[in-house]
Amino acid sequence: MSPPPPTPPPAKAEGRRKASGFRYWLDVQTRWIDNDQYGHINNAVYYLAADAAINAYLVSHCALQPYRQPTDPPPSDPRADVLGLMISTSAIYYAPATFPCVLRVGLRVIKLGQSSVTYELGMFEMPDPTKGQGLPALEGGKVQAPAPGELDGEALAGTLTRATHVYVDRQNRRPVRPMPEAIGKGLQAVRVEEWAEDGEGKARL
Amino acid sequence: MSPPPPTPPPAKAEGRRKASGFRYWLDVQTRWIDNDQYGHINNAVYYLAADAAINAYLVSHCALQPYRQPTDPPPSDPRADVLGLMISTSAIYYAPATFPCVLRVGLRVIKLGQSSVTYELGMFEMPDPTKGQGLPALEGGKVQAPAPGELDGEALAGTLTRATHVYVDRQNRRPVRPMPEAIGKGLQAVRVEEWAEDGEGKARL
Amino acid sequence: MSPPPPTPPPAKAEGRRKASGFRYWLDVQTRWIDNDQYGHINNAVYYLAADAAINAYLVSHCALQPYRQPTDPPPSDPRADVLGLMISTSAIYYAPATFPCVLRVGLRVIKLGQSSVTYELGMFEMPDPTKGQGLPALEGGKVQAPAPGELDGEALAGTLTRATHVYVDRQNRRPVRPMPEAIGKGLQAVRVEEWAEDGEGKARL
Amino acid sequence: MSPPPPTPPPAKAEGRRKASGFRYWLDVQTRWIDNDQYGHINNAVYYLAADAAINAYLVSHCALQPYRQPTDPPPSDPRADVLGLMISTSAIYYAPATFPCVLRVGLRVIKLGQSSVTYELGMFEMPDPTKGQGLPALEGGKVQAPAPGELDGEALAGTLTRATHVYVDRQNRRPVRPMPEAIGKGLQAVRVEEWAEDGEGKARL
Repeated sequence: MSPPPPTPPPAKAEGRRKASGFRYWLDVQTRWIDNDQYGHINNAVYYLAADAAINAYLVSHCALQPYRQPTDPPPSDPRADVLGLMISTSAIYYAPATFPCVLRVGLRVIKLGQSSVTYELGMFEMPDPTKGQGLPALEGGKVQAPAPGELDGEALAGTLTRATHVYVDRQNRRPVRPMPEAIGKGLQAVRVEEWAEDGEGKARL
Repeated sequence: MSPPPPTPPPAKAEGRRKASGFRYWLDVQTRWIDNDQYGHINNAVYYLAADAAINAYLVSHCALQPYRQPTDPPPSDPRADVLGLMISTSAIYYAPATFPCVLRVGLRVIKLGQSSVTYELGMFEMPDPTKGQGLPALEGGKVQAPAPGELDGEALAGTLTRATHVYVDRQNRRPVRPMPEAIGKGLQAVRVEEWAEDGEGKARL
Repeated sequence: MSPPPPTPPPAKAEGRRKASGFRYWLDVQTRWIDNDQYGHINNAVYYLAADAAINAYLVSHCALQPYRQPTDPPPSDPRADVLGLMISTSAIYYAPATFPCVLRVGLRVIKLGQSSVTYELGMFEMPDPTKGQGLPALEGGKVQAPAPGELDGEALAGTLTRATHVYVDRQNRRPVRPMPEAIGKGLQAVRVEEWAEDGEGKARL
Repeated sequence: MSPPPPTPPPAKAEGRRKASGFRYWLDVQTRWIDNDQYGHINNAVYYLAADAAINAYLVSHCALQPYRQPTDPPPSDPRADVLGLMISTSAIYYAPATFPCVLRVGLRVIKLGQSSVTYELGMFEMPDPTKGQGLPALEGGKVQAPAPGELDGEALAGTLTRATHVYVDRQNRRPVRPMPEAIGKGLQAVRVEEWAEDGEGKARL
């Protein structure tokens, strides 16, 4: 059997790229090594940023515990001992970004099945928050680093990526149906019906 | 205007995954950091390996010169001063690979336009070549590192990726039509008609 | 001729690790891939974070322009067309950090020569800012991502790294003495005499 | 208590850089992303290559099993369930390397204690093995990728790195003394007395 096909972001629908259509946000500072020899963020880095946002969400809002010691007690619900196996990914690059920017990464779920989920992520280039700032004083003995400002809800993502996870049992790596409740509820909370796959709900090749 | 849509590998055609269908090969040793917490190569790493093979081919067989000092003399043919801008990528993951393996990466061109090209890459897990080997002696004062063995032409890729480049002028970043001759000839040499997009030659969403 | 030796952070002086001793700050969100199979940030990632902070500072506060098109006009002061060549690096790891945290990276200069500089960086693990937060509402049509909170000035860095740059001419890669004024002034602004190398001011092996 | 200080490679001893002084070899193909905007391999990449060689050696020659499922049976010798915790690293960069080269990485042990070990690694730039090669034919239905040639034993490493591991219990992360026998024997096999730390056997700061 073949894995499900990837579900690339449609190129035409500009509406898909709007910041207002995403539900969870993570700021990912770019790194010097992310720029390639042409002075722009390398295409694979957006997948690293997507993985950062997806997994940060799963850990912070869906009770995923990616690392378990071999001797850690198993979860009380054995069905909860799952991991997300990536089966397909895709990206369209609309506008390049350049270090030292922050990628503000927006996440939404566009398809949610019994054991699988398809995420769509929009990446927005935010200017280096330390640019034009003086050196931070120690305020009351506390250190704060500058943070990027607001992003307009109408702004268009420079890059769109998609990724499809299947939740599998940690040991036998077989799909868990249905997925654990905490994950399903967390994913439902960032689901955006409007951008679900159309047609019969299957990704089109 | 929107960029062209990505062209994901079809999931069903097992024939696409056969080693015998690729034309250029690069062995990419995996790294400790490539494995994620689940003990497998992370999904984004395959894009890094794809970029390694694509760009190694462009430098070694297509006269691409990615790095130019600002004061380097321009190419005698000004149209040759191009760079490949990635506009879309996609991947399907059929079988996981694990460090310390070598990814044997096969490359072919499946679509070649005036200024754009779509690559398809198959990645095959080769066992760690140093496993089961004694420590290498200095033979005649020369050092050789073990290399992975042969791969059967019928073997199926564990991962398929696609990537679409548009060749643009280094300065104004506008597409160059047609692309420089050395690049066009090099890409033609690894083109495999059999796996061209079907239908009207456009990627399907 | 040999390059200068690396200048590793002394292990004993706990004072070196205090947050209050650094002058420029950059928040670097960790990524899923940064964790290794033992569930901790990989040792090399701290060098990537250090490079992010060093180069963000050089671009934002020292007028460094790392990328120049081959046809970009040269800087009006030809001596300003430099790049920082890394000649040695080192790190001590005191306490592991784990994705999905933010590394709050503090930077200071501990040695400043005619053409070279030694940076010292302290890295502090800040909890995932999205943890325990509701999903952000669109406030007045604006999107904001949660930012990490304050860090106590007495907090001790989990990792200390050092790096020595020599500023060289972009073309001939020979040291520029003295380094361009904008860079020298910028580096002076984050210099902390207290943590200069002791003895005769040279790194000790 | 402070962790042991890092043990940087001495800068002067050219003999340390000779290929003939290393005992285990791994070829690490560089990647497009490894080059930074100055057209050279980024300084942190050498640590990634070092980690690749160290861990490939530990897995292939020292019976290390880095990944264990939480439900995998524990090793028959419970003391064998260890992991290597990095406590310090350092590097000196003598000569830059550039993608698409192969880094031929040589490994030796220069200090071996009850629970800790210091590795020294030399990295040699080997030209892209596919350069100047025709496209590989399918020989008897088999696929082989070109491999880099021999390296002269007198060749000098372009980069030297050091790294110190402490072997700790996987669960409580406390040092295991002595380290498991299979690891100790494997490390002893690549120990080179000649390059041990001099003086009282302690790293010097």
